[in-house]
Amino acid sequence: MKAVLIYSGGLDSTTLLYEFRESIALAVSFDYGSKHNAREIEYARKNCARAGVRHLVIPLDFMGRYFRSDLLLSGGGIPEGAYDSENMSSTVVPFRNGIMLSIAAGLAESYGLDTIMMANHSGDHSIYPDCTPEFTQAFGKAVEYGTGKVGKPGSGVRLVSPYCNITKRQIALRGRDLGVDYSLTYSCYKGGEHHCGKCGTCVERKEALEGFDPTEYLF
Amino acid sequence: MKAVLIYSGGLDSTTLLYEFRESIALAVSFDYGSKHNAREIEYARKNCARAGVRHLVIPLDFMGRYFRSDLLLSGGGIPEGAYDSENMSSTVVPFRNGIMLSIAAGLAESYGLDTIMMANHSGDHSIYPDCTPEFTQAFGKAVEYGTGKVGKPGSGVRLVSPYCNITKRQIALRGRDLGVDYSLTYSCYKGGEHHCGKCGTCVERKEALEGFDPTEYLF
Repeated sequence: MKAVLIYSGGLDSTTLLYEFRESIALAVSFDYGSKHNAREIEYARKNCARAGVRHLVIPLDFMGRYFRSDLLLSGGGIPEGAYDSENMSSTVVPFRNGIMLSIAAGLAESYGLDTIMMANHSGDHSIYPDCTPEFTQAFGKAVEYGTGKVGKPGSGVRLVSPYCNITKRQIALRGRDLGVDYSLTYSCYKGGEHHCGKCGTCVERKEALEGFDPTEYLF
Repeated sequence: MKAVLIYSGGLDSTTLLYEFRESIALAVSFDYGSKHNAREIEYARKNCARAGVRHLVIPLDFMGRYFRSDLLLSGGGIPEGAYDSENMSSTVVPFRNGIMLSIAAGLAESYGLDTIMMANHSGDHSIYPDCTPEFTQAFGKAVEYGTGKVGKPGSGVRLVSPYCNITKRQIALRGRDLGVDYSLTYSCYKGGEHHCGKCGTCVERKEALEGFDPTEYLF
């Protein structure tokens, strides 16, 4: 397996980067105009340098300009509360994973790599439609058919999503065992210098890292 | 149906624009660094103005920079000969339709539209994997699952591909009956001021428009 990872610089994809570092030829971060993009990407760079994985940052300015989501700088305030609750739905960025995976698939084929990877997990499923197992399976088929040679099954790019059916807590425990330094990851949707501790992703991060959390939270 | 069309400015998608103009709320062209992008987009603008359809042009600079294809300015020469022959495979742009459709899906959801459309046809199937019926069907499922509300079937965006199983000739005949002015469309992969008449898309265009072809070809 030679893979392209879509890599945010958050807890989940950083764990994946280290767990599969031998198979990851390229990590790609996307600058799509979210409030926390700049900080995430700073950590993504640091981890790729540490892991010895080539890193690309691709700007997607059109998303900040035309897409509607409170996660974007162009959107409204970030809601506080539990990550899986309905009020977090304003932070959905329409078809974000579809866009990032599609670009990763094109890069994989351009560089002769056979796999694309993403770090979606079971806690994402209730709010984010482009993180569900149904989406992941259907998109995987679309990529297999839409790459490689026509009529040659197996010649296309594969989608691998190793955390699709485990929780963020399970990912964090795996990362702890691997020695991942979670102080070099960023989650807060508000994008401040310190994690706010109140938004959905901060609440979720606290739960996942409980007992070994190196994060400085404001609250 | 309120749709976003991925719109190149070529023969097929221009026919689709006019045939479905009542349902198309937005046409999107992508400037991805191909040799013929600038000319295609010029015609796309003209047709959208004529048809009264809002038009966006989205630059995808990373494709010209990182993707490998002879269709790109960064690639090698454009092969001549029949459109469906193996030597045209160097003009495949990896997962281009996946990328364009994904962005269209995100735009559709951002603007409250329910459908994305593309003008792939049966003559595309033998060389371009992201034009086949298998790809189209799988990608349509991925978009339905990956947009809308989780667990609410039917709330996602639909993919409609009305020409998927007809030929370019059949599209052109349909356009002729609709009164489409094909002098305001561009096909040549070489991107010159006049259609070269020798590359795969020019050969295919000549066959499709035979008997009512307004195009000036060099050869």
